[in-house]
This record gives sequence, structure tokens and C-alpha cells, in this order.
Amino acid sequence: MKIPSSILKLIESFERLPGIGPKTASRLTFYLLHFPQNELETFAQALINLKTGTRLCSICKNVGEDDICSVCGDTARDKRMIAVVSGPLDVFSLEKTGYKGTYHVLHGVIDPLNNIGPENIYIEPLIRRLKEQVQADGETAEVILATNTSMEGESTAMYIQRQIRENDMDESLVKITRIARGLPVGGDIEYADDITLSRALEGRIRFDKP
Amino acid sequence: MKIPSSILKLIESFERLPGIGPKTASRLTFYLLHFPQNELETFAQALINLKTGTRLCSICKNVGEDDICSVCGDTARDKRMIAVVSGPLDVFSLEKTGYKGTYHVLHGVIDPLNNIGPENIYIEPLIRRLKEQVQADGETAEVILATNTSMEGESTAMYIQRQIRENDMDESLVKITRIARGLPVGGDIEYADDITLSRALEGRIRFDKP
Repeated sequence: MKIPSSILKLIESFERLPGIGPKTASRLTFYLLHFPQNELETFAQALINLKTGTRLCSICKNVGEDDICSVCGDTARDKRMIAVVSGPLDVFSLEKTGYKGTYHVLHGVIDPLNNIGPENIYIEPLIRRLKEQVQADGETAEVILATNTSMEGESTAMYIQRQIRENDMDESLVKITRIARGLPVGGDIEYADDITLSRALEGRIRFDKP
Repeated sequence: MKIPSSILKLIESFERLPGIGPKTASRLTFYLLHFPQNELETFAQALINLKTGTRLCSICKNVGEDDICSVCGDTARDKRMIAVVSGPLDVFSLEKTGYKGTYHVLHGVIDPLNNIGPENIYIEPLIRRLKEQVQADGETAEVILATNTSMEGESTAMYIQRQIRENDMDESLVKITRIARGLPVGGDIEYADDITLSRALEGRIRFDKP
């Protein structure tokens, strides 16, 4: 039995997406066969316009519509706090917490197994941004390292910490913090893994009633 | 924080697909931001061409490139056997078993809760096809009801069975069979549900050594 080439082509496109295997790709493609043609064209147009309608913010490298993104352009934001994240989706997550500082989007993490070195992600622009900010304001900046707590995320955080210090920005100029590693809220100590539990102990904080 | 509209539009398109929620839709969209523009355009073109490059076979209603699909046009296929399936993906699955008959694709099942009645799927063309075939050949046709074993699949199978008989095609003209319901190969009787197990008992077959 011969499968029409227009179907095969769409299956191939779907298969290139993360988490979508051959079975899901076929299922999605055959589902789309029942869509009206104008909806398929809307979908297609959205794909074509995806990159042409967006650009990276020249300050924080987050994805936006203008040269300066809505966070960096917002005067109510605390410009002295910079949360360093690996991707734009992490920005959404942090926004939901009510965080009022700014961001720096690395667009990846250092991952030697996949040939991603420090020069392939936006670490150098972060160092440059910090230097300029420290010189201009004379105020202490805080860099919150908010990369994932995976091995790659941890080593990227460590690399950035070293880079900041090696570029003559000591603790009096740039404070460096790392998001806490510990038990997720609602977590069970009984089921926590060893490493998480030791991190939770190391990171314990004062718990005095006021 | 403002999300660029070109990103929101693609997220919305992905959300319309089955099994893709808001989180996955965002993840896929941001993943595609790293694709080269020409690959996005290939994907878009595949969507636009999906329906224009395909048509339903005038005999079996399967999706193909021509008026008569490759199965119906194949003289080596047994035209007296017609497997009735709910969608084109089921055809692929049956093809893998080495089945050498033909198909009839309903493009859905009767599902009153979702407002899908017998008139919304290709049951009437099946009855017409059977009548014509029986008149032309004078041979007994076999209809294998291969819809899902879900409630909707079972009631669709029952409806088709009644329709065939009510259209003056008795057992001497059209033999009607239903795919076996029973334990999947490698299955454990201990873990089988009651209904499956009673179907497996009802559908037991002779097991004599030759």
C-alpha cells in the first residue's frame, strides 16, 4: 500500500519535533486531514512568521518583538537583579512567581557531550552586560543563577560564577546566588533522593518565629 | 511580560492538535525558534499541501493520491474481503499483518455524545458498494468488521451488521465477521479484565492437533 507523498512529508516534519515519534507524527497528520484548508494555512503562516516576527532583546537575549524586550524596557523592574536562565520558557516560569528583577537568557547550557561549549551560548554578553552595568551604576548587582539543577545546569552555573570573578568583579560589585536545591513543596523526606536531601540540609535557613 | 504575537499564534495552532496541551505547545514552539527558516517553510508547505495532495478513494474512501487507491487498484488483492475500519491509520496496522483483502474506511465511528451519527461517516457508501459488488459478481462477499473494540466501535459494528441485513443481503450473499476480542498475545489471564476474559471464552476456537 502506497502512502501519499503529501502525507509522508508532513509526518517527516512532525517527527523532527522533540517528543514526537513516528506513531504520534502519523496520528497528528491524519488528524489534520480533517481540518479545513484555511486552518491548515493559518498554522502554516504561523510557522513561517515565527522567526520573522521575533528577535532577541539586545540586553537580555530573551525572545521579544523589539530591540529591547518588555522586561528590560520596564522602569518598574529592579535592574540590579539578573536571573540567568537557560531558555525563554524558564522566563515564563519565573514570571509566574512574581519575580520583579530582570533576566539573562543563555539559550542553552554548557553540554560537552552535545558539543555545546561556553562560546555557543550567551555567556559572554552576560559578562559584558555586568561590566557595563557595574561601571555605569556603581551599585552592587545580584546575579541569580537559575539554570536547571541537572548536571549541565550546575556546571553552567559554576562556569558563569568563575567567569564573573575572573573578570574582576568581586563580591563587592556582583553578588552571585544560586536558586535553592531542596525538597519540592509537598515533598516527602522518606521518598527524597540522597543528593536532594543533602542539598536541602546544606541549604537550610533560619526558622525563627518573629 | 509580553509574549510576541507570532509565538502566541503558533502555540495556539499546536494546541488544536490532539494530545498537545498548552505546555507542550509552548515547548514545541520555542524549540522551533531554533530551526532554520527554510525548515520552517518546508513544514508550512507540507501543511498547505496535505489536503490538496490527497483525495479519498472513490471505492474504499481511504486516503490516497488518485481516484482509485493503490489497494483497490491492485488486481492481486482479494476484492471479496472488505475490512471495515474507522480510519486510515487502522489500514496501516492491518497492512502490517499481511492482510490481502480490501478495506472500507468509515472516517469515524457512531458517537452520539459527540454528535456523530451514521450519516456522518461512510456507512452508506459501504452498503452501496456491497450491493453493487454482490449484483455484479454473484459471489459471496465477506465484511470483516474491524472497528475498535470500544463501546463506539462495537455499536458501529452492530449498526453496520443490521444495515447490511436490512438491505436484503443475507448470509448467502454477504458473510459478516467481527475481529476477535480476547487476550492480547503475551497476556496474563490473572490481569485480564472480566469483559475481555468473557469475550475470550465466548470466542474460543478448536485447538486440535492435526
